[in-house]
Amino acid sequence: MKIIIAPDSFKGSLCAVEVANSINSGIKRVFPNAKTVLLPVGDGGEGTMDTLVAATNGTTKSVSVVGPLGNDVTAKYGILGDTKTCVIEMASASGLDLVPNGKLAPLKATTYGTGQLIKQALDDGYTSFILAIGGSATNDGGAGMLQALGLKILDSNGNEIGYGGGELNKVARIETRELDPRIKKSTFLIASDVKNPLVGANGASHIFGPQKGATPDIVHLLDDNLTHWANEVAKVTGVHLHNLAGAGAAGGIGGAFQAFFPAEMKRGIDVVLEYSNFSSFLQDADLVITGEGKVDSQTASGKTPLGVAQAAMLNGVPTIIIAGTVGDGIEVLHDYGVISVHSIMNKPMTLEESMANAAELLELSAEQVVRVWGSNMHRACANEVPVTP
Amino acid sequence: MKIIIAPDSFKGSLCAVEVANSINSGIKRVFPNAKTVLLPVGDGGEGTMDTLVAATNGTTKSVSVVGPLGNDVTAKYGILGDTKTCVIEMASASGLDLVPNGKLAPLKATTYGTGQLIKQALDDGYTSFILAIGGSATNDGGAGMLQALGLKILDSNGNEIGYGGGELNKVARIETRELDPRIKKSTFLIASDVKNPLVGANGASHIFGPQKGATPDIVHLLDDNLTHWANEVAKVTGVHLHNLAGAGAAGGIGGAFQAFFPAEMKRGIDVVLEYSNFSSFLQDADLVITGEGKVDSQTASGKTPLGVAQAAMLNGVPTIIIAGTVGDGIEVLHDYGVISVHSIMNKPMTLEESMANAAELLELSAEQVVRVWGSNMHRACANEVPVTP
Repeated sequence: MKIIIAPDSFKGSLCAVEVANSINSGIKRVFPNAKTVLLPVGDGGEGTMDTLVAATNGTTKSVSVVGPLGNDVTAKYGILGDTKTCVIEMASASGLDLVPNGKLAPLKATTYGTGQLIKQALDDGYTSFILAIGGSATNDGGAGMLQALGLKILDSNGNEIGYGGGELNKVARIETRELDPRIKKSTFLIASDVKNPLVGANGASHIFGPQKGATPDIVHLLDDNLTHWANEVAKVTGVHLHNLAGAGAAGGIGGAFQAFFPAEMKRGIDVVLEYSNFSSFLQDADLVITGEGKVDSQTASGKTPLGVAQAAMLNGVPTIIIAGTVGDGIEVLHDYGVISVHSIMNKPMTLEESMANAAELLELSAEQVVRVWGSNMHRACANEVPVTP
Repeated sequence: MKIIIAPDSFKGSLCAVEVANSINSGIKRVFPNAKTVLLPVGDGGEGTMDTLVAATNGTTKSVSVVGPLGNDVTAKYGILGDTKTCVIEMASASGLDLVPNGKLAPLKATTYGTGQLIKQALDDGYTSFILAIGGSATNDGGAGMLQALGLKILDSNGNEIGYGGGELNKVARIETRELDPRIKKSTFLIASDVKNPLVGANGASHIFGPQKGATPDIVHLLDDNLTHWANEVAKVTGVHLHNLAGAGAAGGIGGAFQAFFPAEMKRGIDVVLEYSNFSSFLQDADLVITGEGKVDSQTASGKTPLGVAQAAMLNGVPTIIIAGTVGDGIEVLHDYGVISVHSIMNKPMTLEESMANAAELLELSAEQVVRVWGSNMHRACANEVPVTP
């Protein structure tokens, strides 16, 4: 018996590794000798680098860069076990988690450090990049990142603009001449589920600005500035980012990659599964268990459990999902190889109680679910009665 | 595929029939063609008569009797499908549910009506009785029931004592001469899980008196009166009810049956399962699903789900339990053929929310559990891989 445990985090209570450990403990209560493979995954957001490095026995390298607020921070990039693929996690250099409570500065926050990370990796000889761009504190259209890599973004006096989306209205000319030539000789795979355009009501500023500290007035200012930025970018690249799907990802850095890089965007979970060699672990597997804090109809539009189930189904392995909250609309998941969806709740309780006890609840529910799953496998075959549902 | 659905009620939200219906709906979402058998059961308390009559295609007969407070009520007794076995449900004649809110009268409440029910059934020719004694409003030691059947319970003036446990201190003499002679020629099977003695700290008054409206003073009075009653009963029967297990059931009527009747006591669920011909339905069954509002270590000491699981195990059929609340100590249930225990909760919620939505939650959880159970049965046999856990 071989069971693959490939959950996402339960946000606010357990990271993906902890979720996998709890599920594993539950399985082992029932089948102590089962072979289990723990492959905590994620949706391409924060934690992606760690996930992929761990899954491939890769390494990381620390780099001192400019943080989102302009101060120095120590960021890391990852090198996968193939020793060729480099994972840049934007949150490591320009992430929300690097900003102290109450210090969010959406007009000032810069992606400069992310550019420095990429530059260091290029210096170190890497040409194949995965870009995980979740969790950014920035709304600068990726201008800082581009500057770090040699793009000249000049105001009407011919001076470089400063950090942050608040400076983008000053852009008078963009010079591409000194943009690092190694970029064009490399590949950049962007892991992102965000399909938002750069500007407008569904753009980066309106949708993601508030969580980065933007008030309504600042949202409008940032949106205007990104529009001006997109106009200028179009002049030099011919790429109109304004309404381009995905250009609004991570404060507009999604657009910067699309305009200036040989970049491809893919659903986060698919990047994670591909580069963690997920399908290789599925050989001979009898079951995949995945999970996330909340599973509902949104899950079917691309979150971790769906991606895991789809990959498992391609290999003929069924998937069981365990979640904290099971919402409406889960029926569609059955079309993607999901046997069933279970909640960890075992009695009436508050959200706080469930989060405080998530590890134990997860272990208990995994145990019960695996009991059902395993008992019948045993029974049916012992009887040699091929009962067709 | 044949699945037996044999749950108890979810107290306060769904009766056993409703629980069975919800589970059935959940199963049918997954396996529309599965053969399901709905056998709502109970622990021998209220609803037992309806359960057994329904399971055996029996009938009921209405009888006008004295209710617990001395007024007339219409009670019923049941005749099972064998047309021979009579079910007397004490609650129908002397039950708590017959007492209006705020009118509990533990000193006055009488079992006289229960005796009248038995007398009518004897008059109608029945000799085989099942006595379901849960849910009584009384604490009279069964004296009223015995009077209705001819026992003379006299005070020091030679007059019959009145109704209720408050009169038992007056008992000066008991005359058995006119006790209905048909009792000795009949059999009485008492369905009860109560092992309490008649008197003392674990006796009827102390343990069950408060829920029948007894204040601490009244509890002591009732306990003293039952002690006096037990002394008098011992004089005429030789049976010392004081510390006899089960004598404290249903306000002491358990003792009355043991002293004056050819009676046998059995665990409620076992009586229900035996007389509903439960095991006959288990032939060719693939699975039993049972459930109760709360399942925990107490369940292993004899509540409905355990009895169902034990009966199923004897027939080689595994059981899955679905509950509102899953408490601690459920591991021991696996020794009795229980595959697994699942909660109906699918997200954090209050007890009130869970009770208000119990039917839907039950259907959803049954669906998910049966998905796991059924999918693997299919898969394992298709592969012909007899995987041993």
